[in-house]
Amino acid sequence: MSIVITAFARSPDGGKGLARDMRVRWALEEAGQPYEVRLVSFAALKEPAHRALHPFGQIPTYEEGGLALFETGSILLHIAERHAGLLPEDGDARARAITWIFAALNTVEPPILELANARLLEGEKPWSRERLPLVEGRVRDRLRQLSVRLGDAGWLEGAFSAGDLMMVSVLLRLKPSGLLDEFPNLAAYVARGEARPAYQRAFAAQRALYAGKPPAG
Amino acid sequence: MSIVITAFARSPDGGKGLARDMRVRWALEEAGQPYEVRLVSFAALKEPAHRALHPFGQIPTYEEGGLALFETGSILLHIAERHAGLLPEDGDARARAITWIFAALNTVEPPILELANARLLEGEKPWSRERLPLVEGRVRDRLRQLSVRLGDAGWLEGAFSAGDLMMVSVLLRLKPSGLLDEFPNLAAYVARGEARPAYQRAFAAQRALYAGKPPAG
Repeated sequence: MSIVITAFARSPDGGKGLARDMRVRWALEEAGQPYEVRLVSFAALKEPAHRALHPFGQIPTYEEGGLALFETGSILLHIAERHAGLLPEDGDARARAITWIFAALNTVEPPILELANARLLEGEKPWSRERLPLVEGRVRDRLRQLSVRLGDAGWLEGAFSAGDLMMVSVLLRLKPSGLLDEFPNLAAYVARGEARPAYQRAFAAQRALYAGKPPAG
Repeated sequence: MSIVITAFARSPDGGKGLARDMRVRWALEEAGQPYEVRLVSFAALKEPAHRALHPFGQIPTYEEGGLALFETGSILLHIAERHAGLLPEDGDARARAITWIFAALNTVEPPILELANARLLEGEKPWSRERLPLVEGRVRDRLRQLSVRLGDAGWLEGAFSAGDLMMVSVLLRLKPSGLLDEFPNLAAYVARGEARPAYQRAFAAQRALYAGKPPAG
């Protein structure tokens, strides 16, 4: 059954790989699964046809035969459960790897989203300059805890897993902020993720889509 | 194998059921699984023994034999995969139910966490009064989309599932704000969750723990 995912018709970041379809592309490349990409305009995100697939009007979505999923965490888990290479075989190790998917999405990403909001939605507000360090502090607290946990290990839980894929994807959003560089082991961890051939193929595929087109917005 | 979860030694909310151990208690009650509770002081959350279980120094954790998990999403999924009553049997329906766990944690909860931060951490800041409506607007956008999707259905995807358990748990945090009441179908959805016998048992168990003790903080 062929897999179809959705991505932005115009790239908000000029193809730097920060849009969330990148997480799904990377997972499909790790799993060796071919996929097609359907592009969605910003206007179409709000229309009923897309909302039927994604109630919150975002990308990516994932279609495979009669199954339609949204949420990158759910799509990643679905792919990882059906193909080798993204989750350990052993039940307990598997549950630990899945734990890191949730940690990336519900513990590490929320302050990063808050920082993005502070910059993108409130950057012109009178409180922005005074408030930004507070929000950065919340991100830094999480990075410090993650850095302690990772230590000098290569990946979070033994071999590379779907948990690392999601954690690296979430941390990548911080690259422009410079915050990641305060924690050398995390910066190296992210670089290890980016160096994986599957990541490279996924990155090239999304960049090719937007080549020569100006970023949206 | 006996299950041990952790909870706050002193309740930040006076036992109103907003601490995250409630999500795990509820899941274990739905699954009919007995469990023990180990209380952790605020000081102990920061100590190495607890950090070994939970790298981000939070509650709850989940221990079962040699397995130790954190993140309520991961714990809920682990319970739901091993016991009847929280996920459909059919593979596609199962993936859809799991999608709602992720939607609750990564799409609906982040703006709710941001609103909590705006109130608890920035309530005394000079920008608080002007900024609060902006943050409430972000929560309201998500609630509106969720309200449209739910419509007049009882649960998000057919029968009650782990996805509803997590979504109701996340929405419950909004109760004091009054925002939930702007969307009558969501308020009724949350009330349906709270009315479940398993929720009632879990709520009573956590409230009994803090009865007669003043809230922390």
